[in-house]
Amino acid sequence: MKFRFLPEEFNFFNLFDKQAELALEASSLVRELVQQEKVDAAILTRMQEIEHRGDELTHGIIERLNKTFITPFDREDIHKLATTLDDVVDVMNTIVNRLRIYKLGSADKSLAEFAAVIDDSVRNVATAVKGLRKLKDTKSIMDACVEINRLENVGDAMRDRVLADLFEREANPICVIKWKEIYQDAETVLDVCEDVANVVETIMVKQA
Amino acid sequence: MKFRFLPEEFNFFNLFDKQAELALEASSLVRELVQQEKVDAAILTRMQEIEHRGDELTHGIIERLNKTFITPFDREDIHKLATTLDDVVDVMNTIVNRLRIYKLGSADKSLAEFAAVIDDSVRNVATAVKGLRKLKDTKSIMDACVEINRLENVGDAMRDRVLADLFEREANPICVIKWKEIYQDAETVLDVCEDVANVVETIMVKQA
Amino acid sequence: MKFRFLPEEFNFFNLFDKQAELALEASSLVRELVQQEKVDAAILTRMQEIEHRGDELTHGIIERLNKTFITPFDREDIHKLATTLDDVVDVMNTIVNRLRIYKLGSADKSLAEFAAVIDDSVRNVATAVKGLRKLKDTKSIMDACVEINRLENVGDAMRDRVLADLFEREANPICVIKWKEIYQDAETVLDVCEDVANVVETIMVKQA
Repeated sequence: MKFRFLPEEFNFFNLFDKQAELALEASSLVRELVQQEKVDAAILTRMQEIEHRGDELTHGIIERLNKTFITPFDREDIHKLATTLDDVVDVMNTIVNRLRIYKLGSADKSLAEFAAVIDDSVRNVATAVKGLRKLKDTKSIMDACVEINRLENVGDAMRDRVLADLFEREANPICVIKWKEIYQDAETVLDVCEDVANVVETIMVKQA
Repeated sequence: MKFRFLPEEFNFFNLFDKQAELALEASSLVRELVQQEKVDAAILTRMQEIEHRGDELTHGIIERLNKTFITPFDREDIHKLATTLDDVVDVMNTIVNRLRIYKLGSADKSLAEFAAVIDDSVRNVATAVKGLRKLKDTKSIMDACVEINRLENVGDAMRDRVLADLFEREANPICVIKWKEIYQDAETVLDVCEDVANVVETIMVKQA
Repeated sequence: MKFRFLPEEFNFFNLFDKQAELALEASSLVRELVQQEKVDAAILTRMQEIEHRGDELTHGIIERLNKTFITPFDREDIHKLATTLDDVVDVMNTIVNRLRIYKLGSADKSLAEFAAVIDDSVRNVATAVKGLRKLKDTKSIMDACVEINRLENVGDAMRDRVLADLFEREANPICVIKWKEIYQDAETVLDVCEDVANVVETIMVKQA
């Protein structure tokens, strides 16, 4: 009986890993973008493709969840993990999309700062998610979650500083509207990474 | 024993249908509004009444849910369905309310475009919800859900185009602030319709 | 067996009370702040401390929840109650933080109006939460929940009036951006208090 369900269970881990890998692709793309002098249209297309693959992957996980009787951990945690991992990609796509819609031409120094912290946080998200396979080895998961929480605090302070600076230096209200939204989105990516860490911690505590 | 609970079960379907009908009343009102040269105060009052009836209906469903032991499908799905159907009406009420608070006088061409897509999506929401009574006939539910998803994508593209256009043509930042919020709300209605479709699909898959 | 779990159960009530007390500390602080002619930096620091203690408290509740087998009411309701009580404090912290980041110097008359309603609502939240210990005495809980709902409606009307007034009197778009966000946050505190009331009512109905 055990063997029959084991393969199903393992599929969830593979699918979460794929979601985390997509998030890493997205955060790498954001880093690439902030280094460009002029935002390349090809990057926008690549981001849309990542977002689309993320949607399909998430949809597949939830469909499987609804059809599977035995799951490696609580159904509600699997659902929450799949949707928050998808949100990580979605918010990054939103940032890139705004640059295009608002015809901003290129990222600025503040967004470049966020891009580095986001990439760092997403890397730890991937580590935490990978750790779910062997929940006995809690050390690496815990370290990743602590780091994700720390980076969320870094992001809060960064957003406060960057917004204060924007209102200080930018006299054009239209530009304030555009960049304010983008910086707030950038901080939201770190919030959503923290949501992922919270689900992972919940799963860990329940299995302890 | 079965007969005792059956009437209770059927009530949920009736109540969801009523919620969907309210959403249709609201989307028809928005269509009416965008055709007016000058927004009629009576429309604002009618929308508030719809929103109020929606609140009472939703509150009634959740109260009944908490008191009922046997439900036609998972409690969490009933809760989610009731609150997301209520959100559909709430966001439309927010749009109409903003026109009033921001003293915009009348809707514009972009909002009229959204109104047509929203009405279309809400119509499919009503079909999907009605389909829950006979889950074996999955075809009509699936078609409605696929259409709701398609219209959400149409809405995303519409919002991007409409916002790009707003920033292009509107030099007055105060007007940008007002309309930007309204267009984003309009797109949110389509997002919430998609949330309804997702709950309906979840229910279908679980019963399959 | 009963005695073994009883102390655990009671801890939840104590912890919710502590969360409600923190929310009261925060709403008192906001009232203090709106009476100052010039926002005192010490108030900002005190609010950050409250917010930090709130985070730790909430984290502790959720950790305990995940480790406890028998709970005084449904786990999902405990989770929701803990996180919404935390949100009450978080949104107040956001308001105070924005005053600092946007270098607004002092609160205005509109924010002072909100501060009084928020404090009133949070007081009723504390009463409702305290009432959870003796669910048979539903009268005081119900009264508090009805009042929280009434104050949320008061807040909706207040936000509409205050925003209409802002767009009327304020010609500087940068100021519109800053204050609009703060008023909307202020109204959100009342929304979140209503979320708390909804969870409390859910718990009451289930135990009836």
